[in-house]
Amino acid sequence: MTKQVNIAVIGTGRMGSVHTRNLARAIPEANLVAVCDIRLDVAQAIADELGVKRVVRDYHELLTDQSIEAILIATNTDTHAFIVKDVAAAGKQIFCEKPIALDLADVDGALAAVEKHGVKFQVGFNRRFDKSFRRVHEIVASGEIGRPCILHIIARDPEPPSVEYARTSGGMFLDMTIHDFDMARYQGGEIEQVYAIGNVLVAPQLKQADDVDTTLVTLKFANGAMGVIDNSRQAVFGYDQRVEVFCANGTAAANNETDNTVIKGNQEGYHSDRLPYFFMNRYASCYVEEVRQFVECVRDNKPVPVGGKDGRAAVVLGYAALKSLRENRPVKVSEIK
Amino acid sequence: MTKQVNIAVIGTGRMGSVHTRNLARAIPEANLVAVCDIRLDVAQAIADELGVKRVVRDYHELLTDQSIEAILIATNTDTHAFIVKDVAAAGKQIFCEKPIALDLADVDGALAAVEKHGVKFQVGFNRRFDKSFRRVHEIVASGEIGRPCILHIIARDPEPPSVEYARTSGGMFLDMTIHDFDMARYQGGEIEQVYAIGNVLVAPQLKQADDVDTTLVTLKFANGAMGVIDNSRQAVFGYDQRVEVFCANGTAAANNETDNTVIKGNQEGYHSDRLPYFFMNRYASCYVEEVRQFVECVRDNKPVPVGGKDGRAAVVLGYAALKSLRENRPVKVSEIK
Amino acid sequence: MTKQVNIAVIGTGRMGSVHTRNLARAIPEANLVAVCDIRLDVAQAIADELGVKRVVRDYHELLTDQSIEAILIATNTDTHAFIVKDVAAAGKQIFCEKPIALDLADVDGALAAVEKHGVKFQVGFNRRFDKSFRRVHEIVASGEIGRPCILHIIARDPEPPSVEYARTSGGMFLDMTIHDFDMARYQGGEIEQVYAIGNVLVAPQLKQADDVDTTLVTLKFANGAMGVIDNSRQAVFGYDQRVEVFCANGTAAANNETDNTVIKGNQEGYHSDRLPYFFMNRYASCYVEEVRQFVECVRDNKPVPVGGKDGRAAVVLGYAALKSLRENRPVKVSEIK
Amino acid sequence: MTKQVNIAVIGTGRMGSVHTRNLARAIPEANLVAVCDIRLDVAQAIADELGVKRVVRDYHELLTDQSIEAILIATNTDTHAFIVKDVAAAGKQIFCEKPIALDLADVDGALAAVEKHGVKFQVGFNRRFDKSFRRVHEIVASGEIGRPCILHIIARDPEPPSVEYARTSGGMFLDMTIHDFDMARYQGGEIEQVYAIGNVLVAPQLKQADDVDTTLVTLKFANGAMGVIDNSRQAVFGYDQRVEVFCANGTAAANNETDNTVIKGNQEGYHSDRLPYFFMNRYASCYVEEVRQFVECVRDNKPVPVGGKDGRAAVVLGYAALKSLRENRPVKVSEIK
Repeated sequence: MTKQVNIAVIGTGRMGSVHTRNLARAIPEANLVAVCDIRLDVAQAIADELGVKRVVRDYHELLTDQSIEAILIATNTDTHAFIVKDVAAAGKQIFCEKPIALDLADVDGALAAVEKHGVKFQVGFNRRFDKSFRRVHEIVASGEIGRPCILHIIARDPEPPSVEYARTSGGMFLDMTIHDFDMARYQGGEIEQVYAIGNVLVAPQLKQADDVDTTLVTLKFANGAMGVIDNSRQAVFGYDQRVEVFCANGTAAANNETDNTVIKGNQEGYHSDRLPYFFMNRYASCYVEEVRQFVECVRDNKPVPVGGKDGRAAVVLGYAALKSLRENRPVKVSEIK
Repeated sequence: MTKQVNIAVIGTGRMGSVHTRNLARAIPEANLVAVCDIRLDVAQAIADELGVKRVVRDYHELLTDQSIEAILIATNTDTHAFIVKDVAAAGKQIFCEKPIALDLADVDGALAAVEKHGVKFQVGFNRRFDKSFRRVHEIVASGEIGRPCILHIIARDPEPPSVEYARTSGGMFLDMTIHDFDMARYQGGEIEQVYAIGNVLVAPQLKQADDVDTTLVTLKFANGAMGVIDNSRQAVFGYDQRVEVFCANGTAAANNETDNTVIKGNQEGYHSDRLPYFFMNRYASCYVEEVRQFVECVRDNKPVPVGGKDGRAAVVLGYAALKSLRENRPVKVSEIK
Repeated sequence: MTKQVNIAVIGTGRMGSVHTRNLARAIPEANLVAVCDIRLDVAQAIADELGVKRVVRDYHELLTDQSIEAILIATNTDTHAFIVKDVAAAGKQIFCEKPIALDLADVDGALAAVEKHGVKFQVGFNRRFDKSFRRVHEIVASGEIGRPCILHIIARDPEPPSVEYARTSGGMFLDMTIHDFDMARYQGGEIEQVYAIGNVLVAPQLKQADDVDTTLVTLKFANGAMGVIDNSRQAVFGYDQRVEVFCANGTAAANNETDNTVIKGNQEGYHSDRLPYFFMNRYASCYVEEVRQFVECVRDNKPVPVGGKDGRAAVVLGYAALKSLRENRPVKVSEIK
Repeated sequence: MTKQVNIAVIGTGRMGSVHTRNLARAIPEANLVAVCDIRLDVAQAIADELGVKRVVRDYHELLTDQSIEAILIATNTDTHAFIVKDVAAAGKQIFCEKPIALDLADVDGALAAVEKHGVKFQVGFNRRFDKSFRRVHEIVASGEIGRPCILHIIARDPEPPSVEYARTSGGMFLDMTIHDFDMARYQGGEIEQVYAIGNVLVAPQLKQADDVDTTLVTLKFANGAMGVIDNSRQAVFGYDQRVEVFCANGTAAANNETDNTVIKGNQEGYHSDRLPYFFMNRYASCYVEEVRQFVECVRDNKPVPVGGKDGRAAVVLGYAALKSLRENRPVKVSEIK
């Protein structure tokens, strides 16, 4: 077998444990050498489960280990920026969960460190690695159905988050729509203007967090195309994830994946089951594939598929949408500094 | 059989001939007694085909005929308003093709006459009579899936009109989107604000008519819901007509109708045919059903299903969208007088 | 307009009234000049509704009318054969409802008369005129997906007939499967052997009529292909009508038509309505098209699309299936004389 | 974590290597302690890849190892029976790939040993573990849609095997249809009679192996239901795997899984990609799940989900189909001893 990449994970919470298990079991290109969490017992438990030998509480211990080539950062968002700076300074390749940071100055500081130290930096926009969304991208990028005209992105969570979660998440645009901003850029290129409307229609408790639960964001792309992102915090039929790119000479649309293909017919008509419950199920293979590709890029010294520029752009679009919602007017992306 | 309604048609062009044939062949509740067109030969030809006995060039001749109860107006848009006034003054029930007029003052004059003379007045928003869109409406109106949150309307023509057509049509919003504004009101209720973006992406010749060919209109409804209308003048795969009403406790979506249900599998994958070419095919049964219901309402003296208020509202929304496109800002519907 | 064909209808019961209304309203190529029924009041009522001038009780009156070119026979099955003989002898073109007769000698006698007098003879196998089944036929006949290998025909009624109906219908194979035998020949060519199994699984009362309610008939075609026909008297989700022709280099499948295209999503999953209730709805357009083509063939003196040989073959296959069911063995079609 | 089951794999060829990788990476309940293959280098390579410590050439070495609780047998079919006997005699729990053996006496000998030594014995009918087929089973077994009436199983390979493969495979019924016989029993219960027809329509070279490439097998179930299995060696659009169980009060159908959900529209219509190429892709998750459940049954001392009786029944049905094809008559399953 070709050379494996020695990698460590910092942060073994919800997303971190997914990545840790994937690195240990499903990505043969990687050699998971250490896990780190400030909650040492959490890190120890997953290390035991997977047979990982090294467990640390303080990520600085990993930075001086010359055998470690790459680090996956899956800590709380507010710690991403300074960890990225430290890891970059240590010369290690970086995979960082999204968003890079909620403060644009922090994002820029992190990206400056990455550039200065010349390390790879991939952001965890997992949906680019979904087979269906990638197929849409390939069809559109091939030019066979002409220039993009109108993009539709539908992304609806099955149920609203808690008020506590909403308070620290940065709000719906930076927590949830951020994925769709990245998808919009992936499918349609750079975005110049956003216009956002939103409302509290299903989860009144979110008003306490000054957040909304239903939004519609209209996009103008640099290439003349238009787009719309439909987001809701409550789709009772499951995690609703669809993309259509309507083009001058055709269209390409990715419909929802389903848990099974069964249709039941009875007196009332035809019925099929709810959608896969949530992102862990729906995007399970994407979490493997994004990190697998990152590890492969490190191993073969290739550019990563989703970089710092992409990570920054999605945050900027989140702030533009927020400004638009508050001022009820279209906002140029260039207004956000 | 119960009593038939004596009805005449004014204007036997594209839409008028559809209505004339339907009245003669497919609406047993109606007795088509006369047809009228300023091109007498055109009226005569269809009368011969259908065995209609009376053919006139000047519609005033019909107004004094006491046996005629109802009149269907399918002349050029710029003649609707004054014909409506005359027909209303003659005390006859009116079915008028959309739009009532392109000038709001004309619309208001026509509606004032209708009200003054107490005649019925139905506007030809045929899509409300489509079985699938009506089923969506019923599901939403029943309340079983909760309050509407986000409406999606997709309506794409198969190919762009000529520059000449575009010049006299009132532009894309008043010619094409007007149907979708009515559909939006049918599914979601009153609209308070529109924001429209548009571009020329597929039919450069339309620039000569100062028109666009691709538009995205964002809606705010009075009930707090939001909506988006996606329109294009060129869907090469056929006449693309879809509606989704996403609600707090579910969703209801009408997909495209197809000419056949055949799927072919071969080395390249699975294939199905293009959509029915255009509105005459797609909405054939709606043209029958809207007039059938009108005739029934006349016969049984019931209120018509789509009235003058609906006809006016769609025109107002068209102007609001046009203003929004030109000024690149959200426009309150109340700004349009 | 080109010349119309003067046509009369004998038998204005269930199927006859459908054909009568279609001839009067939906087939411009036809001029419906008379209707005939031994129940004169039934014939008179539909004539009044449609403005047909001539109404007779005895079909012989029509035979001497030189102005009548064609006759549509929709009487009870047991009268088809002798009426066909009389009409053929009168030199009139014939459209005859299926089956030609339940007794093969009667079928042969009727067809001999048709041949002797050189009149056209079309059998009412309406499903050949369905757009989707015809599209499957075209794809297969074009050769683009190679030779047929396995045909699947699914045809399930929504609910069982009465015992009385079953007693006089000739049994499930001659009443119901007969359509599918014709569809099998239409899609796959001549059939050499059948093997039929069947059971009473949903309508125990049919045992009194010595009939079954669920059958599976396996076919061997002359060209080496195989096929299976799945029939049931009770599909509670509606009238289930599907065809697949699996070929050496692909497949062509017609799925069910639906009344609307609406999908509802809620807590339980996704739902769509039952299928169109029964054959009158499902095949409404086929009843028009088969007679329209017949009239056109008469007018232009062309061969009819479904002839006496086709009508006979389906009856023979019905008897072969019945013999196979009773003897529990494969039966060569050539065994049936 | 709860106790892991120590397991070894005998045979690391095509299916064996799939199971070996799954045991090492995807089944946390298992502890893969050894691999065995008479081609020692093949076993060594996969052991190196997965970090398995023990590699042996002769499976007898494993039988005396008291730490090994369970053994997965994935050797050539003709060795299954005697290895099963040895492993059973050693008191180890057994998972055996299908078919148990091609000779019924061998099957019976193996099963007798299993019974005598009281070990668990699971047969590798992986499709029972497919989420969609299981969902169909659950719906039917729940009784909510009434008694089964007609089963349809469609199973078509993407391309024909080599003549060499066909020669040693036992023929299409024992190699390919055997899966469908098991699926039929899983969905509909015991089978009493089969009638098989078959032909060489796409792969003339198979005549040299006295085999067929296209078959249709009709089934009579003990409960009165009927069924049909449609098999082909060449579905150019991909690995076609469908099941429908039509019942007295409804139906439950599993459609094909797809690699992606993308639909492309263009001038020619709508298009989607071919099906997943072959069984390794289509049933990847089933191979994990069947062994995971086996390991769980060993760990918790529960009965296995697919046992020796099931393995035997499918072989018997294969021979019944073969006899039916050769004699062109329905064959009672009880005729096969």
